[in-house]
Amino acid sequence: MAETISDVGEHPMIRRLTAGLAAHPQVVLGPGDDGAVLRFKGDVVVSTDTMVEDVHFKRAWSSAHDIGRKAVASAVADLEAMGARPVGIVIALNVSATETTQWIDGLQQGVLCECERAGCALVGGDLSRSQQAVITGTVLGDLEGRAPVRRAGALPGQSIAYCGNLGMAEAGLAVLRRGFSSPAAVVRAHRFPDPPYRQGIVAAEAGATAMIDISDGLVADLRHVAQASGVRLELDTARFSANEHQQRVAAALGGIDPAQFILAGGDDHALVATFAADRVPDGWQVIGEVSEGEACVLVDGAEWAPTGGWDHFSDSR
Amino acid sequence: MAETISDVGEHPMIRRLTAGLAAHPQVVLGPGDDGAVLRFKGDVVVSTDTMVEDVHFKRAWSSAHDIGRKAVASAVADLEAMGARPVGIVIALNVSATETTQWIDGLQQGVLCECERAGCALVGGDLSRSQQAVITGTVLGDLEGRAPVRRAGALPGQSIAYCGNLGMAEAGLAVLRRGFSSPAAVVRAHRFPDPPYRQGIVAAEAGATAMIDISDGLVADLRHVAQASGVRLELDTARFSANEHQQRVAAALGGIDPAQFILAGGDDHALVATFAADRVPDGWQVIGEVSEGEACVLVDGAEWAPTGGWDHFSDSR
Repeated sequence: MAETISDVGEHPMIRRLTAGLAAHPQVVLGPGDDGAVLRFKGDVVVSTDTMVEDVHFKRAWSSAHDIGRKAVASAVADLEAMGARPVGIVIALNVSATETTQWIDGLQQGVLCECERAGCALVGGDLSRSQQAVITGTVLGDLEGRAPVRRAGALPGQSIAYCGNLGMAEAGLAVLRRGFSSPAAVVRAHRFPDPPYRQGIVAAEAGATAMIDISDGLVADLRHVAQASGVRLELDTARFSANEHQQRVAAALGGIDPAQFILAGGDDHALVATFAADRVPDGWQVIGEVSEGEACVLVDGAEWAPTGGWDHFSDSR
Repeated sequence: MAETISDVGEHPMIRRLTAGLAAHPQVVLGPGDDGAVLRFKGDVVVSTDTMVEDVHFKRAWSSAHDIGRKAVASAVADLEAMGARPVGIVIALNVSATETTQWIDGLQQGVLCECERAGCALVGGDLSRSQQAVITGTVLGDLEGRAPVRRAGALPGQSIAYCGNLGMAEAGLAVLRRGFSSPAAVVRAHRFPDPPYRQGIVAAEAGATAMIDISDGLVADLRHVAQASGVRLELDTARFSANEHQQRVAAALGGIDPAQFILAGGDDHALVATFAADRVPDGWQVIGEVSEGEACVLVDGAEWAPTGGWDHFSDSR
């Protein structure tokens, strides 16, 4: 019989999860007291993000390690999108009483792996019982004297540019739903995102006036920017093309347009920002322009909605 | 048919929940962007706390408003116990797709009611789907230049004192489990705690060297202080007595010792701290002393464990 959380007990499991955590220069006091203590140089950005079993992930498709990585990455991406440097994260974990300690340990290893990549520290958490696994990550980031880069702030004449992946996780989900497990690159992208860490600060320092991370889909998330900024965002599909993996998946799905993955796919947590045309940082790709007009997103000059054989708003998102 | 969250949709519900939130002098940017922005005077304390339906609360016993108040109060009490001033809270809410908007609105009203009492602002959240209702509150507090008051720090010769309620929620739970709904004072205490807001700062400024909030029970939580501090904590039951409500409940439960509610009952989130004997603040009651010796908690000179007919570690805690 596998060892379960009930065999070990709540407090011993918490001690096991918090033993030997890495130090961080801005963490004054880590886990083990009523709260952790962090030291910031500037204003503090906070964001919270929940992942629910069978809603945001499936155990059949993702290992505990994958899920731990995804919980951290998707939460931290929100800090990046404000131009903040991630400092600390707290994780509230709800699991059933029969959850194996192996799964929880795997999740924790994934959390710590992604914390190291993101540059932040796990500083606390909570552990309790529930029917489904529910993982809530709350991250704190440091603006270090910078102003936050908001959704409101896009200006006519600016370039729209992105950094990171677009439409990879969505292609992976489409593959997994059909019972396949390749191309590996897209399946991996579904399991955990690869946000462009530290590029949010790069964008802020380059003078980005609006920024967002892509969690619901490029067009859907840019609508928030268009509305908050009161501008028209015009995407030019000649500026980006589906990669070979996305093309393979689109062909396997009966020849849908692979651009749909890029325009409608979420969960990759790319950053998209608006810059003066001559100040787009290296590593960011221009995909369109900001113009005056009614707040909306146009793709090649027209309103856009996904078409074809796959359902973007299905249960397993 | 009652309106459900599925009828309204996620984004409209979020807009409804975040409309017209109160301003707070330390909140630079509230909900609606990728993250909220807060401004602190000193180091930042963070703590996260989850409440799960049928584990931490039952709908039959608690209204949505009660549950919202409890989520905020139990999270903020952790900040108080560090000597911090609560500033902001983010709430991740998971509910079923058939949850009524009336219940969610009630929860939100309870959250806002308790935020006002605690002096903090709701600055963000997340809303997603799950089988059970799961509410995770993460609070951020400001040490304003003070050092955090940790569990480690109790010194031999100090007085142990508390502020707030002890054993009221546990008496309420005992009553509800037996199908009764009075005494009202204890039932209400189960539904949401009444932490002694701002007394954590009072204790810190009076020179408290160790502090904790009572969530698992006085003796159980003081064991954490004893172990972290390496001291013996000696409680003197002559220093406190069960109130009339607790005496009534104890009698109705077949004559158990009402002191058990005080010694073992959690969820009231009283603050307990150690002070130099001549520096105990007004409103704090001395209940024992710190002495040298093996780290442990003694009650009237002896080790103590609950006895009698009620189960402290049952399902509905």
